[in-house]
Amino acid sequence: MSPRPLAFIGTGVMGRSMAGHLLKAGHTLHVHNRTRAKAQPLLDAGAHWHDTAGSAAAQADFIFTIVGFPQDVEETYLGAGGIIASAKPGAVLVDMTTSSPQLARRIATAAAAKGLAALDAPVTGGDVGAREARLSIMVGGDETAYHRVRPLFELMGKIIVFHGGPGAGQLCKLANQIGIASVMMSWCEALAFARHAGLDPTRVLESIGGGAAGSTAMTVLAPRALKGDFAPGFYVKHFLKDLRLALEAAEAMKLDLPGTAQAKKLYDQVAARGGEDDGTQALFRLYQAQG
Amino acid sequence: MSPRPLAFIGTGVMGRSMAGHLLKAGHTLHVHNRTRAKAQPLLDAGAHWHDTAGSAAAQADFIFTIVGFPQDVEETYLGAGGIIASAKPGAVLVDMTTSSPQLARRIATAAAAKGLAALDAPVTGGDVGAREARLSIMVGGDETAYHRVRPLFELMGKIIVFHGGPGAGQLCKLANQIGIASVMMSWCEALAFARHAGLDPTRVLESIGGGAAGSTAMTVLAPRALKGDFAPGFYVKHFLKDLRLALEAAEAMKLDLPGTAQAKKLYDQVAARGGEDDGTQALFRLYQAQG
Repeated sequence: MSPRPLAFIGTGVMGRSMAGHLLKAGHTLHVHNRTRAKAQPLLDAGAHWHDTAGSAAAQADFIFTIVGFPQDVEETYLGAGGIIASAKPGAVLVDMTTSSPQLARRIATAAAAKGLAALDAPVTGGDVGAREARLSIMVGGDETAYHRVRPLFELMGKIIVFHGGPGAGQLCKLANQIGIASVMMSWCEALAFARHAGLDPTRVLESIGGGAAGSTAMTVLAPRALKGDFAPGFYVKHFLKDLRLALEAAEAMKLDLPGTAQAKKLYDQVAARGGEDDGTQALFRLYQAQG
Repeated sequence: MSPRPLAFIGTGVMGRSMAGHLLKAGHTLHVHNRTRAKAQPLLDAGAHWHDTAGSAAAQADFIFTIVGFPQDVEETYLGAGGIIASAKPGAVLVDMTTSSPQLARRIATAAAAKGLAALDAPVTGGDVGAREARLSIMVGGDETAYHRVRPLFELMGKIIVFHGGPGAGQLCKLANQIGIASVMMSWCEALAFARHAGLDPTRVLESIGGGAAGSTAMTVLAPRALKGDFAPGFYVKHFLKDLRLALEAAEAMKLDLPGTAQAKKLYDQVAARGGEDDGTQALFRLYQAQG
């Protein structure tokens, strides 16, 4: 793709790395973030600062967002002076925040009414995946727009899959979070049992990590938890947001997810005990506290 | 290790492959199985048949067992004419069945009283792991005996870890089964949600299989479940046995395992609907049935 004017709204841990890849590929980058200081590395590398999302969006052919919560997405897109009010006709809007499928559909409808195409394209892979451009990007929305954006997605991710109309990317991301929920209980319960039984949990990991109980979370997070390292790779408060979205969506389709519901209850307890700003591996502490 | 007389009791899917590796390494093999026909490939390859476990055990320096349920283990070791009554002084007894830690301790005590050493050494890795000698073997019991048996374990497995005194191998195996319990809910719920949401679950697997929701079970079992293949790799009825043992052991140490308890309830439903002889991936059918 020849160099194009792009906007990137939300330059936190994830957004900063992702926007950096777009900039390095030679595109012109217009950025906005709630806290300007977090955009500084991008500005130093040549990105242009804007005081509002709308102002950045007005300059761009492709507008990317990755902000905090669904209400932030709503305000950024649908608020007065927001992206939809400000974007040039023909621009493509790409929300990469993990947000609600319903909101993705509302944004797509509002965008279409203004001659804009919209995609919901949440990601997995965390800060490391963002830094190494190895994200999994789950895309929903306008399929033609998807094909236009794909070369830019390829600068940020490794696994890029189109899942269907507006909201389908968010639904796939919720499926991912649902998958994570019980996986977290899996390794926490296995290792809590091992420790309570008087075994060495590190040796137990050696025995079971490569087998049928094995998971990415067990490999990555269990060793941290065993060392008492509860620093956030992924925040408990954000995971709780995702679990709420997932369980609401499941309820709407009359689907019972007892494992996810159980994990949500446990994470509510983690948060109630002050663990909101810890990493998701803090669930292990809850099991430990039983001993 | 120079060729030695060995006994192998229990030549089902797992035992047949494991005993085969011992035989191929040049050891003399005395075998017994409830159903003689299942031992035939070993007999054809040079193993010696015995009508009872005790008779096979009486000929051997090292006696291996992998039978069905704890009551089978109890009878095989502690019954009249069983292994402990029949083994030669100095022999090492190795139970590789997934059984109860308490029973492992009782066998170790009874063995010691007769001048025999005992190990509990359950495995993971399934039929394929057994066939390819890539099992994970989790060992508890007499540590000196462990070092004597280790060269034989190395003929059957890849990851061999000593976890402590009698019962420690069984406790580690229970930790493994605990880990599996919630992992099964994880991929079932993620894919049931995807399908109910109208997504293509195969594409969803592509997006999420390599990330934080990823697990060995998702990689191996989800594709089978999506194809409607519920043939047993690992039987629901055996998994339920293991979950009962695990939850009993956890209860005895006053450890709450809500994820495992939830999975057990779901597998009880799978069994109640006639799925006892299906593979553990039959859990997916339970979620599907909601649609």
